[in-house]
Amino acid sequence: MSDKAWGGRFARDTDRGLAAFARSLPLDRRLWPYDLALSAAHVRMLAHRGILSQADADALLTGLVDLERAFAAGEVELPEEGEDIHLAIESLLFARIGEVAGRLHTGRSRNDQVATDLHLYLRDAAHRQSAALTDLLGALWERSRQALEQGVVVPGYTHTQRAQPVLLAHLWLAHFDALERDRGRLADLVRRANRSPLGAAALAGSPHPLDAVLTARLLGFDGPYDNSLDAVADRDFLVEYLSFAALCGVHLSRMADEAILWTTAEFGFAALEDDAAFGSSLMPQKKNPEAFEHVRARAGRLTGVLAGFLATLKGLPLAYNSDLQESHHALYTAADTLDGMLAAVRRLLEALVVQPERMAQAASDPLMLATDAADLLVRRGVPFRTAHRQVGELVAEAAARGVGLGELAADVVAAHAPALTPADLARLTAQGAVAARATHGGTAPARVAEALERARARLAPPPLPPPPPRAADVAHTPLPLEEVSR
Amino acid sequence: MSDKAWGGRFARDTDRGLAAFARSLPLDRRLWPYDLALSAAHVRMLAHRGILSQADADALLTGLVDLERAFAAGEVELPEEGEDIHLAIESLLFARIGEVAGRLHTGRSRNDQVATDLHLYLRDAAHRQSAALTDLLGALWERSRQALEQGVVVPGYTHTQRAQPVLLAHLWLAHFDALERDRGRLADLVRRANRSPLGAAALAGSPHPLDAVLTARLLGFDGPYDNSLDAVADRDFLVEYLSFAALCGVHLSRMADEAILWTTAEFGFAALEDDAAFGSSLMPQKKNPEAFEHVRARAGRLTGVLAGFLATLKGLPLAYNSDLQESHHALYTAADTLDGMLAAVRRLLEALVVQPERMAQAASDPLMLATDAADLLVRRGVPFRTAHRQVGELVAEAAARGVGLGELAADVVAAHAPALTPADLARLTAQGAVAARATHGGTAPARVAEALERARARLAPPPLPPPPPRAADVAHTPLPLEEVSR
Amino acid sequence: MSDKAWGGRFARDTDRGLAAFARSLPLDRRLWPYDLALSAAHVRMLAHRGILSQADADALLTGLVDLERAFAAGEVELPEEGEDIHLAIESLLFARIGEVAGRLHTGRSRNDQVATDLHLYLRDAAHRQSAALTDLLGALWERSRQALEQGVVVPGYTHTQRAQPVLLAHLWLAHFDALERDRGRLADLVRRANRSPLGAAALAGSPHPLDAVLTARLLGFDGPYDNSLDAVADRDFLVEYLSFAALCGVHLSRMADEAILWTTAEFGFAALEDDAAFGSSLMPQKKNPEAFEHVRARAGRLTGVLAGFLATLKGLPLAYNSDLQESHHALYTAADTLDGMLAAVRRLLEALVVQPERMAQAASDPLMLATDAADLLVRRGVPFRTAHRQVGELVAEAAARGVGLGELAADVVAAHAPALTPADLARLTAQGAVAARATHGGTAPARVAEALERARARLAPPPLPPPPPRAADVAHTPLPLEEVSR
Amino acid sequence: MSDKAWGGRFARDTDRGLAAFARSLPLDRRLWPYDLALSAAHVRMLAHRGILSQADADALLTGLVDLERAFAAGEVELPEEGEDIHLAIESLLFARIGEVAGRLHTGRSRNDQVATDLHLYLRDAAHRQSAALTDLLGALWERSRQALEQGVVVPGYTHTQRAQPVLLAHLWLAHFDALERDRGRLADLVRRANRSPLGAAALAGSPHPLDAVLTARLLGFDGPYDNSLDAVADRDFLVEYLSFAALCGVHLSRMADEAILWTTAEFGFAALEDDAAFGSSLMPQKKNPEAFEHVRARAGRLTGVLAGFLATLKGLPLAYNSDLQESHHALYTAADTLDGMLAAVRRLLEALVVQPERMAQAASDPLMLATDAADLLVRRGVPFRTAHRQVGELVAEAAARGVGLGELAADVVAAHAPALTPADLARLTAQGAVAARATHGGTAPARVAEALERARARLAPPPLPPPPPRAADVAHTPLPLEEVSR
Repeated sequence: MSDKAWGGRFARDTDRGLAAFARSLPLDRRLWPYDLALSAAHVRMLAHRGILSQADADALLTGLVDLERAFAAGEVELPEEGEDIHLAIESLLFARIGEVAGRLHTGRSRNDQVATDLHLYLRDAAHRQSAALTDLLGALWERSRQALEQGVVVPGYTHTQRAQPVLLAHLWLAHFDALERDRGRLADLVRRANRSPLGAAALAGSPHPLDAVLTARLLGFDGPYDNSLDAVADRDFLVEYLSFAALCGVHLSRMADEAILWTTAEFGFAALEDDAAFGSSLMPQKKNPEAFEHVRARAGRLTGVLAGFLATLKGLPLAYNSDLQESHHALYTAADTLDGMLAAVRRLLEALVVQPERMAQAASDPLMLATDAADLLVRRGVPFRTAHRQVGELVAEAAARGVGLGELAADVVAAHAPALTPADLARLTAQGAVAARATHGGTAPARVAEALERARARLAPPPLPPPPPRAADVAHTPLPLEEVSR
Repeated sequence: MSDKAWGGRFARDTDRGLAAFARSLPLDRRLWPYDLALSAAHVRMLAHRGILSQADADALLTGLVDLERAFAAGEVELPEEGEDIHLAIESLLFARIGEVAGRLHTGRSRNDQVATDLHLYLRDAAHRQSAALTDLLGALWERSRQALEQGVVVPGYTHTQRAQPVLLAHLWLAHFDALERDRGRLADLVRRANRSPLGAAALAGSPHPLDAVLTARLLGFDGPYDNSLDAVADRDFLVEYLSFAALCGVHLSRMADEAILWTTAEFGFAALEDDAAFGSSLMPQKKNPEAFEHVRARAGRLTGVLAGFLATLKGLPLAYNSDLQESHHALYTAADTLDGMLAAVRRLLEALVVQPERMAQAASDPLMLATDAADLLVRRGVPFRTAHRQVGELVAEAAARGVGLGELAADVVAAHAPALTPADLARLTAQGAVAARATHGGTAPARVAEALERARARLAPPPLPPPPPRAADVAHTPLPLEEVSR
Repeated sequence: MSDKAWGGRFARDTDRGLAAFARSLPLDRRLWPYDLALSAAHVRMLAHRGILSQADADALLTGLVDLERAFAAGEVELPEEGEDIHLAIESLLFARIGEVAGRLHTGRSRNDQVATDLHLYLRDAAHRQSAALTDLLGALWERSRQALEQGVVVPGYTHTQRAQPVLLAHLWLAHFDALERDRGRLADLVRRANRSPLGAAALAGSPHPLDAVLTARLLGFDGPYDNSLDAVADRDFLVEYLSFAALCGVHLSRMADEAILWTTAEFGFAALEDDAAFGSSLMPQKKNPEAFEHVRARAGRLTGVLAGFLATLKGLPLAYNSDLQESHHALYTAADTLDGMLAAVRRLLEALVVQPERMAQAASDPLMLATDAADLLVRRGVPFRTAHRQVGELVAEAAARGVGLGELAADVVAAHAPALTPADLARLTAQGAVAARATHGGTAPARVAEALERARARLAPPPLPPPPPRAADVAHTPLPLEEVSR
Repeated sequence: MSDKAWGGRFARDTDRGLAAFARSLPLDRRLWPYDLALSAAHVRMLAHRGILSQADADALLTGLVDLERAFAAGEVELPEEGEDIHLAIESLLFARIGEVAGRLHTGRSRNDQVATDLHLYLRDAAHRQSAALTDLLGALWERSRQALEQGVVVPGYTHTQRAQPVLLAHLWLAHFDALERDRGRLADLVRRANRSPLGAAALAGSPHPLDAVLTARLLGFDGPYDNSLDAVADRDFLVEYLSFAALCGVHLSRMADEAILWTTAEFGFAALEDDAAFGSSLMPQKKNPEAFEHVRARAGRLTGVLAGFLATLKGLPLAYNSDLQESHHALYTAADTLDGMLAAVRRLLEALVVQPERMAQAASDPLMLATDAADLLVRRGVPFRTAHRQVGELVAEAAARGVGLGELAADVVAAHAPALTPADLARLTAQGAVAARATHGGTAPARVAEALERARARLAPPPLPPPPPRAADVAHTPLPLEEVSR
């Protein structure tokens, strides 16, 4: 007979190859803190409801808390052949406290258990990554503040072509806004996901008089799922997280791509400090922005994880299917990848030394003032479309002569744009163009200063549900909890 | 010289092949309602700020409103060679009202214009799809209510293997909960996205004294973007929508897969009405659930659109790049596909005639009562893990003898599970098992009835920002708006 | 009763909404040439085998050929409500030749029919795209030849940082090699896919004495599928095509990204002719490489199509499922997208005017000669790793002083690299560095000239199976074909 | 100063966090066998060309071979902080043989080195997976042979609805054909990829007189790349492999999905042996096909890896970029995942015990003979479309009466299908239907027997390039190799 925990009906033990193939322990071992806290909450509830004797509950809680200590101290060796973290912990508990360990799994299933663990893991990751994003936002804010103080002007690009001069401070805030949205999405998804599957058991609920509200509260959830089938089958929270991670990855990749451009010899808008760049095994002169390239590359990985997990989820009938075990691979790959990217970008931002002179030199390209010339015409009554054409023709003339707009002769200017004079054109400057764009959200210094103030108010992270408790905390939370009901 | 609207500096007109390649008009023509409303708001604001004379503004508004009427009446023929909907509308306007049309584009760019149009399109789609989801939720709710009334029991499955009997009403509510989350996500993303890019112009704001708050208000936005670079470069709102659509597609696909199983001869849990099934060109007997298969298949398409769009976005430096034109293909493909899926599933739900007797027959499979036997042992003091093993052995005995659990002889029962009698086992029933699962979210009739009540309270859709206004409305909104500021 | 072609067993006609949802005609209408040729081949075979009378066969062939003429002339109006191209053609045939049209579908099913059509469509697309790739390869080859003749040197980049000078001719050949692999993959996949599903009928073969080898030959296939279930369920050929398209798209995107860099003001390595660039609606000076950006963006779309179709295919049991109808959307989206990209890149390559002086100026950056300095040390007996470090130190000294390697004082050189003199360093040039890299595949002019010769021999495209025949050809092919067997 | 191997120009050592972020050693450590063989080949060539003295070469070869032995024996501890396997091996070599180790990197770069390693790794994986596929094909072939011998008939499905009876042997061969195509694709891609990047150095070739043909031959490549830029930038071979893996995964997933259906209580077409099934932690009766579910799920992962890697590759300019380091994650994830799936399906196939009686009972469903009735009408001269309709009506009549086609009264039959009698219908059998489908590729026993013979001839795998050599082999290969040229 199989000696598996579930082996009663099996005449033979699982084939070793298939067991290894199906084993989730190498991946889900990182769930131990959540699984122990969950078990502690479950035991508290079983005792509270009289399903377990207080003595059994105490034995179990002591075992769980001790196991938590041992895990944290690195003393626990997980069984090589263990199927998953849930059974591994159960067997470790047997070894420590004997037969009473067999009462732990009363009224629950690995189906509701793993779903709850994943929720707790996600909540933990969200706290960590919300903090990392907040840290990054603070750094962007500070860079923006400094750049505003220094009045650094940089070409603004569209189509990677110089378009109009903008404040560097304005550009940092653009990245700020994108990453702030990411942080908001993360908070939203965690709040939406903050329901406890525990109590759904395998798929249908339990015949034991469990108190799903109590376990939910003990673990920091807003409450239990409304439907037991949904509770074990739902992985929406992971898809939302993977979507958040992929999009956040795209933002970091956009920042990285920009930085890679900036550090080219051709742009020269920034240099990397030596300790943030990498050399070549062959070419002694090389100083490569490799970490930025990895950021860009790993955004692709995040997209792939999302696409793959959606493919896996598609077309599974209710309720639980083992296909959902792919959750582990998807979630941990995404979370680890994003952790690394956030930390790297944070550090890289420090190490990216901007070169204000090179920026200013590029920003003084007179072609970038063409729009201002057209706008001047508009203010003199020329319809915009006509003004655009007239200035476009001046641009063509200037290009043909290899001169700036402000250097065109009076007759040339008059021939194309009768309402303009060379002096008008010569008066246009990058600083003037920047200052003129004083609409809400525009790049004028006053507007950017206002935007900085608004951004300062948004530096603090949005509230999240509490971090997952430790088993030791759960074991000692006084009962009854307020508001405990049903 | 090029006769393009932007052709001033160009010596030659665009190559026809490249123009066709880059042309977005075949896709973005559907944006006309939003582009007209946007233009009306822009004109109102320009006049309000004195950038346009009231006479010019009136001429432009008359032209825009008339064009809106003509579009709606199907009277407008778009230029074959038009580059995009923005220039096409500008040229239509020239044809109607002459040179004053050239003043429309004052202080704006196609970069902020298309971003605003996409926001408005998305808001429209969200209203439509939130309503479709609400309709579908209502149908699921009603099916659940009926099934509860009739007390239909069906096998609950895990791993597509019979697990425990559940109420059919419970299963419908599981799908309800998943789709309700989708509707919530849709509302959230539209609310988060409800900022107006208009006023950002090309990338840096405008030197004209635009009132971005006013245009935002006229178009139903909460306000303008905080940063002009972000305003034109941001496509987060599309990624969020595509993520919503992909996940909603997965839910519909899961429902479809389940229905396909149910309508097999082997399951026989449901039949499709004749007008919802499809025949074979060759096999006269066939009645195929093709529409369900299409639902399942198109979920793959939605995943692909999301993955592809993320790949396109990755690694673009600030601010606007033409790569973002891919937004059209992604958004419209996803929105159209999801529209079709939602309508199809709504209709298919009507046409899916469940077969309660076949369900009941399958649900009476005595093996599905094994957990109840184990739970009975637990109530008699046996640790759960031991109980599980004992009952597992009884299952093996029953399987070897080809009998049900309730038909095992007393000595066999006693040998494996001393605390049980054949009578205990014989008393277990599917109805009893269902009724026993009375935990929160469980399948017991009382719990499902409660869940139905809670669900009824959630039938009404969450609030959304207002639908996009028509140009005619915008043209006549009295100014100043309350609260208009800056 | 349903009046559908398959409606015998159906009491009611299909719901209009669901029919519209499931309808493939808007997509698969482009299959008409293949479906007509297929039908002609099927009729020839039925007559050859005596399953149809010669009179009936003649009537059918006349009808099919006439329909082909009418389609080509644009005279055919497809029924709005038609389910798919197969039934649409059958009903058009009924209208033209009456009841005998009802004999056409003998011994076949839409399952084998659509699979065969898709194979033929793919073969056609492969001929078109192999030719487009060949054309592009010819243009790259010619650009390389010219650049070699002119001896244009350009910085070679790694990590988008200047690395070592290379010949521009060498760079064009790098793109040549990548695209040539694409063309090879296309040929391979079409050859592998060149089997005819016709004769598999719905899934199991036919009780009529069909000659599947004959129809295969008439349509230019190597032979029929070996297994009827596989014949109708297999979409490997599409996945292979989508993989080819996605990878080819990546190559075109890499070229586009490079060109976008080159046309920045900062790099300035190339300019776009006016008729290949696009202007801004707002900024009169802009000349944007939009078509290149679209190429880059649509590579993302191709990736998405592949990912989505794989998601759709995953987990379908044998044999045919309607999910496979997604083939149309995936295949046509990919083929159309790639057609556009190939044509655009071909044109853009013409329009991209390189600026050899700017390239040469950048290529003369002395830092790019550091490897040559290290290699000189190696030739003087210094271990490479030591040489690398010594030159690296010289690079640091030069950077600190803001001078080139060749301008370092003798004592500085001696302090770090005793085996080098300032004269050694001053003698290093970009031209010398290029000439020195004379290994196989290296950038030395002689090597590149050899590579060009090898490339010339590979300009001709690899052989493909014949293009799909027209129905008119099939109708008049003399029988028996040689080698017709079974 | 940095003490990195490339640290000469760096004033400070790399930030630890960024170094950890960029470190590939945890992933690429598995490349040691290939990197050592490559290094041995490089040393042999350097000596052959006189770039290294024979004494130095011998010292290096001794060190490399000894390191290979030590790695194989598990004696090597890689440096925690190592950047990648290439530098790690170089530093291990320094520790063993001293300064001469510094001569190893002469004329090569990590750029050509890692590309070569990846090619060798892929070749190794291809040998392993081609063998695994061959093994699986053998098992499918044998199952087919047995099933043919036993004459097992099973319903053939389309749309997961019973369609026509087929031989089980035929179905196994359908899977055989799909997997055989996979094996062919694998061989093709490895053959196409069998070119050596070594000699390309960083990107441009080397000034040392390397013999790239010799190193290529020593490592079992057909020859070197034609272009050094392409050599270091090309990852087509990985994309092709990932495409192969994703499609092979889809095939395995389709088999798994079918098996999951078969093992449901409702289908009952197969049972899993106890050692290939998994139990439930809660429900004692459960016997779940979890390993099949994992196969299905991991096909999603493979799709994701492909999509993600394509996203990463898109838009990188020439030549090498660190983004390509993502190759490690993509390749190893895919290869490991597919290894596991292939082994699992091989074992599961053994463990899947078909239930011929349940299959036969389902296959005798009289509705599946409807096509045969229509074909009988065709043989009696009725146009197929009319015959289809008549039989469809009989199906409707039978369904309304709840009887089989063969049980309809004579007047009913005559009313709908005048050319048929009840006796005609009663004579139709599943066995007869199977036997009648005797077209090429059809399910008739004779045809399947032929197909089995053809399949037997294709059991042997297609030829592959040789497996990668060991460093010890390379060190002792006699030179000059025949055909060594350039």
